[in-house]
Amino acid sequence: MPTHSFSATTSAETLTVMGAGLVGSLLSLFLARRGHTVDVYERRADMRLSGSVEGRSINLALSDRGWRALEEVGIGDEIRQVAIPMYRRVMHDAQGNLSYQPYGQDNQAIYSVSRAGLNRTLLGLAEADPRIRLHFNQQCLSLDPRTRQLELRDTITGQEQHTTFRRLFGTDGAFSAVRSALQKTERYNYSQSYLDYGYKELNIEPGPAGEWLLEKNALHIWPRGQYMMIALPNLDGSFNCTLFFPYEGPHSFASLQTPEQVQAFFEEVFPDVVPLMPELTDEFFRNPTGSLVTIRCFPWAFDDDVLLLGDASHAIVPFYGQGMNAGFEDCTVLNQLLEQYGDDWHRIFSEFQRQRKPNADAIADLAVYNFEEMRDRVGDPRFLLQKKIEARISAQFPGKWTPLYSQVTFSHTPYAEAWQSGQTQEQIMSRLMPHIQAEADYDRPEVQALVEQEMARRG
Amino acid sequence: MPTHSFSATTSAETLTVMGAGLVGSLLSLFLARRGHTVDVYERRADMRLSGSVEGRSINLALSDRGWRALEEVGIGDEIRQVAIPMYRRVMHDAQGNLSYQPYGQDNQAIYSVSRAGLNRTLLGLAEADPRIRLHFNQQCLSLDPRTRQLELRDTITGQEQHTTFRRLFGTDGAFSAVRSALQKTERYNYSQSYLDYGYKELNIEPGPAGEWLLEKNALHIWPRGQYMMIALPNLDGSFNCTLFFPYEGPHSFASLQTPEQVQAFFEEVFPDVVPLMPELTDEFFRNPTGSLVTIRCFPWAFDDDVLLLGDASHAIVPFYGQGMNAGFEDCTVLNQLLEQYGDDWHRIFSEFQRQRKPNADAIADLAVYNFEEMRDRVGDPRFLLQKKIEARISAQFPGKWTPLYSQVTFSHTPYAEAWQSGQTQEQIMSRLMPHIQAEADYDRPEVQALVEQEMARRG
Repeated sequence: MPTHSFSATTSAETLTVMGAGLVGSLLSLFLARRGHTVDVYERRADMRLSGSVEGRSINLALSDRGWRALEEVGIGDEIRQVAIPMYRRVMHDAQGNLSYQPYGQDNQAIYSVSRAGLNRTLLGLAEADPRIRLHFNQQCLSLDPRTRQLELRDTITGQEQHTTFRRLFGTDGAFSAVRSALQKTERYNYSQSYLDYGYKELNIEPGPAGEWLLEKNALHIWPRGQYMMIALPNLDGSFNCTLFFPYEGPHSFASLQTPEQVQAFFEEVFPDVVPLMPELTDEFFRNPTGSLVTIRCFPWAFDDDVLLLGDASHAIVPFYGQGMNAGFEDCTVLNQLLEQYGDDWHRIFSEFQRQRKPNADAIADLAVYNFEEMRDRVGDPRFLLQKKIEARISAQFPGKWTPLYSQVTFSHTPYAEAWQSGQTQEQIMSRLMPHIQAEADYDRPEVQALVEQEMARRG
Repeated sequence: MPTHSFSATTSAETLTVMGAGLVGSLLSLFLARRGHTVDVYERRADMRLSGSVEGRSINLALSDRGWRALEEVGIGDEIRQVAIPMYRRVMHDAQGNLSYQPYGQDNQAIYSVSRAGLNRTLLGLAEADPRIRLHFNQQCLSLDPRTRQLELRDTITGQEQHTTFRRLFGTDGAFSAVRSALQKTERYNYSQSYLDYGYKELNIEPGPAGEWLLEKNALHIWPRGQYMMIALPNLDGSFNCTLFFPYEGPHSFASLQTPEQVQAFFEEVFPDVVPLMPELTDEFFRNPTGSLVTIRCFPWAFDDDVLLLGDASHAIVPFYGQGMNAGFEDCTVLNQLLEQYGDDWHRIFSEFQRQRKPNADAIADLAVYNFEEMRDRVGDPRFLLQKKIEARISAQFPGKWTPLYSQVTFSHTPYAEAWQSGQTQEQIMSRLMPHIQAEADYDRPEVQALVEQEMARRG
């Protein structure tokens, strides 16, 4: 573990973290390693004891921003052993034909990891740290940022506890109780915006010998224009599938009301996967339909007393695979500021939100943008050709052209910068592509001249 | 009063209107004239009895959209007698020099009216209608759109009342209790966004003989780049001034903490008006600092049971003078749909929100956009020249070019269409203006050729 980022000596304090999900448990490790005592309160039971996991997709795509944070707290290698690299998208058309799109160069991959497994590992690490005290089954009933009063209820005993905090970190997710308290302060900016789509989790069974029945090291997509399904591999040979589907309309949750309708619909539009889903109709009606929300708010900090991180301040839709990664990057950025500004919490909190807010807004936009790309454009040969041409430009001008997806996924470039440069590149591609009908056209002198001209103009 | 828009016979119902502000009292008139019985609940006291008016700017700019609604309920002439036409903007620079910008052609004007006076007139009309029952001092404690239960508290007696409604219209303003109930339904889209500016109301006294000490028939602006003050005339010779000012920063509410600081600041930046404000420093510290919020939400309707109108569904900042006008236009549009679809309330509510939401979003954007224009660009001679050139184009191509301001203020073109065409026109102006240094340049053959070319391209 690189210890250089924990070198500044600051006055040790007792800090409060509300929420022991992925971001909260990771954050507690960062804070404890700077010498602070950390009380972590979590509304749910200790997930290491119970087998069940509430809601949410059961695997996640971990990429470079997330890895960096995990490596800083020393568990990169441990998680790598249970992570499955996905090197490319595999698209399944309605006839079961496949096409492919690599995510990056060479060995660049995103990694399928179990949300619950990763959370358990982080909690275990937190519990092993004597400076961290984990408190489960503690519901935050109210919180006053001005008086720093906190009211908690033990969901097992029903006992209520009134306490005060000195400094509190809200990592309690998209429906954050901490953010609710900030929302009651004056002139609070807040928005919640739902897609007209919900999601349904389904399962692809492993083969008889525990083998993967689709290509293991890939993220599978069934793009169907107005909706799509995706699948990520699990270690046991199964895949976790998610159908993203309109709530209303001709093909929608509202239009599929019986097992027969579901079966017929899947056989028509996802024929290659139906034989791998023996429990399809049961799961379809048993599993809840999840909603897809983008939450934006500001400010994230209340003086030097309260700070929101992760989904509590910027819940995004899952289509860029960056929700967890963005939350983990929050921890890395906060840690850098703690290193830089020592005890000056006021500056740390205000600098954190100043730096991070535009990036949170950018990844929120990118995530919605990528939904359109995944459900629609990845099925288009012209789109796949454009991606190949982009890869050629990137190889020809090293360091001068990085595809947007790579900037988001395989770099630490701030999201807002990535989004900006991605839009510029997209405009260039829209001028180049009319001159290109096949990958070989890229080498034609007139196309090369155009490329040179565009790159010169870009400077 | 034109009766044609009340011709459809629908089954009379007992309807509920929550909020007896400008939009609520006007709406109750529209509904009663269709034969319905209307219960109107208002949290505040009957403003006709009390002299005081809570918060909010005391005069408003009424324009064509608002006039149409008032004329439909038959009080256009009555209001016209107490409305002061404002034909132009008068800009005051830091040396007290004036410049001018007409709002429209010929006799086109916006009208300064007293908010309280207009509200009282509407309430009086409502009270005179036997189908309308006004209930004051009734606070909405809770409302369940599913069960149609309503809980009210009499703010005088403290008595609580549980009742049910069949169909409820939420016209209870930016901090609507009805909207709060809708916000608790699933997947509700909501945003509240505050400017970093607050406002402060100040007063310009009448002259000794009750005369206006600034040009009467004008809206006065003191544009100062990052902030501004405006003034609208009252019937008694006074003007109601509003300072729009940053909360924080070098020139801000935070930086003006003492009467001496306020006096010195006003003498420096608004020197011509200080002698007309004998109570400046008293008022500055006595009057509250108002905040400026944009609220967006969707849906506005819950089945055919609840519908939001006015600020409850689309509160906007005041800089286009369209808040009340947009709310009144809501009433006109709803009335047209009642005419068109009779008893089909489900269709009426869903059609209302489908038609109106894009227009509400457009005027919200326009209002923020106009803040920049008023506080900054109206002080720029190039901007005023551009407006003159636009007026020339508009005269040369009748019906083919209407300045954005005129479309918003003097037409019934849906706001979204106005905004779209305004943006197109702005792009054209940005291409023309580099060729124009003075109004006379407009007649130069090369400029005329460019204008012809742009107009031909626009089609």
